[in-house]
Amino acid sequence: MRENTIQSIWADGGAVLNGWLAIPSSWSAEVLANQGWDSLTVDMQHGLADLSQALSMMQAISTTSTIPLVRVPWNEPGVIMRSLDMGAYGVICPMINSRAECEAFVGACRYHPDGYRSLGPTRARVYAGADYMQHANSTVLTFAMIETSEAVKNIDEIVSVPGLDAIYIGPNDLRLSLMGEGGADNEDPEFMEAIDKVFAACKQRGVRIGFHTASVAYAQKMIDRGAQFVTVMSDSALLAAASSQVVTAFKEGGSAATKGGTLY
Amino acid sequence: MRENTIQSIWADGGAVLNGWLAIPSSWSAEVLANQGWDSLTVDMQHGLADLSQALSMMQAISTTSTIPLVRVPWNEPGVIMRSLDMGAYGVICPMINSRAECEAFVGACRYHPDGYRSLGPTRARVYAGADYMQHANSTVLTFAMIETSEAVKNIDEIVSVPGLDAIYIGPNDLRLSLMGEGGADNEDPEFMEAIDKVFAACKQRGVRIGFHTASVAYAQKMIDRGAQFVTVMSDSALLAAASSQVVTAFKEGGSAATKGGTLY
Amino acid sequence: MRENTIQSIWADGGAVLNGWLAIPSSWSAEVLANQGWDSLTVDMQHGLADLSQALSMMQAISTTSTIPLVRVPWNEPGVIMRSLDMGAYGVICPMINSRAECEAFVGACRYHPDGYRSLGPTRARVYAGADYMQHANSTVLTFAMIETSEAVKNIDEIVSVPGLDAIYIGPNDLRLSLMGEGGADNEDPEFMEAIDKVFAACKQRGVRIGFHTASVAYAQKMIDRGAQFVTVMSDSALLAAASSQVVTAFKEGGSAATKGGTLY
Amino acid sequence: MRENTIQSIWADGGAVLNGWLAIPSSWSAEVLANQGWDSLTVDMQHGLADLSQALSMMQAISTTSTIPLVRVPWNEPGVIMRSLDMGAYGVICPMINSRAECEAFVGACRYHPDGYRSLGPTRARVYAGADYMQHANSTVLTFAMIETSEAVKNIDEIVSVPGLDAIYIGPNDLRLSLMGEGGADNEDPEFMEAIDKVFAACKQRGVRIGFHTASVAYAQKMIDRGAQFVTVMSDSALLAAASSQVVTAFKEGGSAATKGGTLY
Amino acid sequence: MRENTIQSIWADGGAVLNGWLAIPSSWSAEVLANQGWDSLTVDMQHGLADLSQALSMMQAISTTSTIPLVRVPWNEPGVIMRSLDMGAYGVICPMINSRAECEAFVGACRYHPDGYRSLGPTRARVYAGADYMQHANSTVLTFAMIETSEAVKNIDEIVSVPGLDAIYIGPNDLRLSLMGEGGADNEDPEFMEAIDKVFAACKQRGVRIGFHTASVAYAQKMIDRGAQFVTVMSDSALLAAASSQVVTAFKEGGSAATKGGTLY
Amino acid sequence: MRENTIQSIWADGGAVLNGWLAIPSSWSAEVLANQGWDSLTVDMQHGLADLSQALSMMQAISTTSTIPLVRVPWNEPGVIMRSLDMGAYGVICPMINSRAECEAFVGACRYHPDGYRSLGPTRARVYAGADYMQHANSTVLTFAMIETSEAVKNIDEIVSVPGLDAIYIGPNDLRLSLMGEGGADNEDPEFMEAIDKVFAACKQRGVRIGFHTASVAYAQKMIDRGAQFVTVMSDSALLAAASSQVVTAFKEGGSAATKGGTLY
Repeated sequence: MRENTIQSIWADGGAVLNGWLAIPSSWSAEVLANQGWDSLTVDMQHGLADLSQALSMMQAISTTSTIPLVRVPWNEPGVIMRSLDMGAYGVICPMINSRAECEAFVGACRYHPDGYRSLGPTRARVYAGADYMQHANSTVLTFAMIETSEAVKNIDEIVSVPGLDAIYIGPNDLRLSLMGEGGADNEDPEFMEAIDKVFAACKQRGVRIGFHTASVAYAQKMIDRGAQFVTVMSDSALLAAASSQVVTAFKEGGSAATKGGTLY
Repeated sequence: MRENTIQSIWADGGAVLNGWLAIPSSWSAEVLANQGWDSLTVDMQHGLADLSQALSMMQAISTTSTIPLVRVPWNEPGVIMRSLDMGAYGVICPMINSRAECEAFVGACRYHPDGYRSLGPTRARVYAGADYMQHANSTVLTFAMIETSEAVKNIDEIVSVPGLDAIYIGPNDLRLSLMGEGGADNEDPEFMEAIDKVFAACKQRGVRIGFHTASVAYAQKMIDRGAQFVTVMSDSALLAAASSQVVTAFKEGGSAATKGGTLY
Repeated sequence: MRENTIQSIWADGGAVLNGWLAIPSSWSAEVLANQGWDSLTVDMQHGLADLSQALSMMQAISTTSTIPLVRVPWNEPGVIMRSLDMGAYGVICPMINSRAECEAFVGACRYHPDGYRSLGPTRARVYAGADYMQHANSTVLTFAMIETSEAVKNIDEIVSVPGLDAIYIGPNDLRLSLMGEGGADNEDPEFMEAIDKVFAACKQRGVRIGFHTASVAYAQKMIDRGAQFVTVMSDSALLAAASSQVVTAFKEGGSAATKGGTLY
Repeated sequence: MRENTIQSIWADGGAVLNGWLAIPSSWSAEVLANQGWDSLTVDMQHGLADLSQALSMMQAISTTSTIPLVRVPWNEPGVIMRSLDMGAYGVICPMINSRAECEAFVGACRYHPDGYRSLGPTRARVYAGADYMQHANSTVLTFAMIETSEAVKNIDEIVSVPGLDAIYIGPNDLRLSLMGEGGADNEDPEFMEAIDKVFAACKQRGVRIGFHTASVAYAQKMIDRGAQFVTVMSDSALLAAASSQVVTAFKEGGSAATKGGTLY
Repeated sequence: MRENTIQSIWADGGAVLNGWLAIPSSWSAEVLANQGWDSLTVDMQHGLADLSQALSMMQAISTTSTIPLVRVPWNEPGVIMRSLDMGAYGVICPMINSRAECEAFVGACRYHPDGYRSLGPTRARVYAGADYMQHANSTVLTFAMIETSEAVKNIDEIVSVPGLDAIYIGPNDLRLSLMGEGGADNEDPEFMEAIDKVFAACKQRGVRIGFHTASVAYAQKMIDRGAQFVTVMSDSALLAAASSQVVTAFKEGGSAATKGGTLY
Repeated sequence: MRENTIQSIWADGGAVLNGWLAIPSSWSAEVLANQGWDSLTVDMQHGLADLSQALSMMQAISTTSTIPLVRVPWNEPGVIMRSLDMGAYGVICPMINSRAECEAFVGACRYHPDGYRSLGPTRARVYAGADYMQHANSTVLTFAMIETSEAVKNIDEIVSVPGLDAIYIGPNDLRLSLMGEGGADNEDPEFMEAIDKVFAACKQRGVRIGFHTASVAYAQKMIDRGAQFVTVMSDSALLAAASSQVVTAFKEGGSAATKGGTLY
């Protein structure tokens, strides 16, 4: 079975740099798959791709060695299993607030006897190899999103679910839940206190820590704190920012912004 | 009829900043339409959109006041007319090398008696208003791409075609044609000599000058030289560059790259 | 944040005329968005659009000031939240039969602390403005469909759910449930008795009343009775009826049917 | 081979009622295919469908006995032949202004030795039967659009092209060409004079006459004058008109407009 | 209402040969619909089609008398009801392990008072006829997949649910559940013991038996044992096998493999 | 630049086995890309894929080392250049009947100074590598289809066009042109005489020979005769044949047909 290089990076003590795909296009996915991200996540929750677009995006990613992941819209077995059958090597599931929700999520990603995933890995077998079914349970990664105060409260129970590989911090929702307002890359004491609690629980159980961020600087702070998987912005956000830089530079008559660009 | 604000900018002596859409997605188009570009061009030649995607991209652009343009794959009446019927407020046509080719192109964009465009502006009438047919010939813009040594040689005849609003320099092909190799933002004497000749011919005839560039700095140089319409990179190129900056900054442990980003 | 003009109409004591989109096309959506409906609902339950088509349909609607709504296929948080992130300014949810179902539905439409909607309004922020997150809970409308005898029985509990803006009568299912057979625009005593009970409960709680109808006449009767939001037929039904009129008039040799039409 | 019932209607001395599809959706196509039109034309010129959508629209039409036709974007062999391979039973080609253009068009629709159509009727063979190749040349219909003064001038030569089954009047373009302004259903003397000339030439050669109209009344006038194939409005136009009737009736408080409608 | 010929075959004591569609294309669906399968199932679980593609695939199937079925991704009312509204004449639902799950599934397929399916059979009414609503409950078929040891244990309760027409054996999952490893067409005693128990329960209740197989030989064995509905491979698997035969024959220099083929 | 392994096979004296894609799906394309074909051709002429589907099909093929080719609908520069920009490593162009047509075709595939292809290899550069522009002219393959008696007559002039890599026999059209009826895998003397003439002309000029066939046996005969590139059937035809075998075996009660199959 094709290796999940996220596991290799982790085994080597490294941290994974993950890209985030909100644009529902196999072309933008292929562009990003050639930029050096360790993995790319097709976001079917707040991103705009549906499953059929996720399929062609994962095919585009599979032209490279970048690892394809998905974020599913909700903790619903149908979409989780279909994403895996299409070749996702990991699933990020939003809003896991309790042990029961985490069990339902992880179970949907694991074949019997570890879970209740239905057997029929149509494209996954093509992508991963003929022995997919033998190794999928230990290769496909499960990320439970921790993004509410309730999840923080239940963190010990959540991370104790067998088969959970990692948690993934959704800072926007988590800050909203804790402090009444969202916001990226924050270091408010109240927020950081919750983060510390979550990180500690994960470390105790050997569960990896993922974090959604809006800058390399913050991502690296979180890695220093213990995260091993970080996302920095989304393709939409990167595109908007780069686009805005050009427009601003142009309107200000400046020129620094895009030195050395290419045409296409 | 809805105003073509490119014409207003020109009437005010300004230069138009045009964005370039190679990603075939209405979402990335809508993101860019909200960044302040004066116009956005759906590229159906080297870009990945076909007509059906161009339709939804133009609809997305039409949620804002940004002007929708297209670059057609080739000087072929079918695709030119369909783009206009879908609401494009201007057409950039590649590889116009002679007066006859320019006449064929411009004629496809103009109703009788100025040309041979077929009457049936299905979506254009919705986008532009019920009086579209009365004003389309003077509102829809025609850009002939000048990108070969042959076109430079024939420039006086090309720009003398009635109804041609602008030329558009394709520097990659033009440099290849002149010097045996492509390349953006170049200022090689041989290239600049050709540019000067083209600019002079345009100015004499009152034909506007557009230029495809890879940086704000170069775009502004060309404006200083006489261009009134500049493109700076494409969405794909902006996305790749922004993505690459993040990856590089992360791998180098740096942090400057994406300060102040957003999550989605 | 962009105003939800449905609220303004209601504030002015008016009734909203809503159009219904069963055809999964951004073009038919844009055509209807230019005909004067106050709002348009992309029907993902009995209509044919999926989420990815709903996105381009809502983009097409957003070229006008018509308010985009969706009917979701079922009371499932994933599809409700995704529709809102794509810019829907209201959600009509089928088959709300109990207070618990209503709470689950409304909660999926509201950010913390009013509900459990996940924060990441990708396109909604572009459509509505940068302050979307501050005002979404009071701007996005929730419509619970009342279409079974059980719902009628539980109507007081259903309409008492905080955050519920309106109910929406599904007469086909409701008549089936009450009388064993569906049917539009009926005024059977048994049906009207249920309607009266529902209307009364809504009025007591200040919950608005929506009604799915098949004619202007019936819609106006329901408005007279207290409804403030009415749908008249769907695009499919309008198209079939208009088409059938032409065919019938042609086959009968008549000519009245389509005087004054247009070609496209 | 499946019969082309347009030919049967003509053989019986009848006139064909053709519907017009500008909405690129297999669902609206299927709705119209069930309303009693004799044939339906997927319009890939001023309509919004591309070839891939035309395929699914023709499949939807093929669930009924309605005959599927296409209007191609331009007189270009690639799109003509592909439409036929997808199962179109006739092609309407815009802007045929000369004998040479007509020969190029008709030749693209006919196998050797009658033309130069390439052999490979992928879906057509499934739709029409295994003997498609033997009978296609005499079953597939060719309609040359007559819509310029030049075409009227050359009408005798155009209709003398062997294999041309019918002409099709495009009144919008024709009136523009003759009188400087488009317009449907007109009976201006100058326009009618041209029509009479075209009709006469067709009758002499046994070429059938088609006409694009905006009302049953006008269509029947043209049939009385000699037309045997008429289109009345498009799906977009029918939908817009029906939609506008509802909105107007509602705003006026009237009720007559949509008595007897259905919900979906 | 259009007859469900699966019921006629069963009434005649015959067994249904069902084809399986994993390729999300209306063209491959139409090709298979012309090969003589009694029914075709669009697989939205392990297959790659989503609902929007299933729509055009069912339209393609409806050009023939082949019966269209779907396998839904999961026991979720939204997708079940939408499939039926799109014209599916039967639903195969995965992973039915208890009476409660079976009731939820069957209820989603039946109108009041037999279930809770919402009334609005948009395309189904076009496909089946205007009296669809009167006959749908007795025409649309329900297949509960039996594919876990738990389901085998609960088989008597499952098959006693009123309105359940058939079970459908998923041998891959069932063998995994029983014996720790998947596998098609197996006759292991442990597996066959479970099968015998399931078949016996079905026969006692008059519930039909369906079976997913990988060969005609095994399918016929299961028919001999009591199955009345068999699937043999999927389109993907057939295509891969046929393709592999050609490649192998070519590389071995053999020639037997594809005698008598066609080009397209 | 990524190697074109067709050239390596030819350099080694081997013959290329090419698969043919008429089904417009990235999934069937990926299935076939994993079966051992040396190259796969997306057929946009008689096949059903348009350019946008060809893009995702070529992305799917690019997950393997199989070489992606296209057949374009017609000798039209727009579609030829777009296919190449999307990453096709060769173009098969139908109906090349003269030296001028061949020059137009080959020129569209070659950058200056060898042709007039426009520079902007958007996806090709990602697929092939950053030095694509330097090596494309010698890596991208051009196949001119020889399929009429006129082409046979002009074969010497056609194959003398510089930059033409190969011809490709279209036997269906060629037989129709020569003998009045199409047909695959024929060895009629009249047909073979033409073939011999074409093969001889190619050998003299060092132009490779491709052949469209319907069986391995015939393909190998043509290889023995001098062909170095053979196609055996299309995906549609393989699927129809495999499907038909199952149905026939089932209806005959036989069992040999699909021994050893798989489920998905």
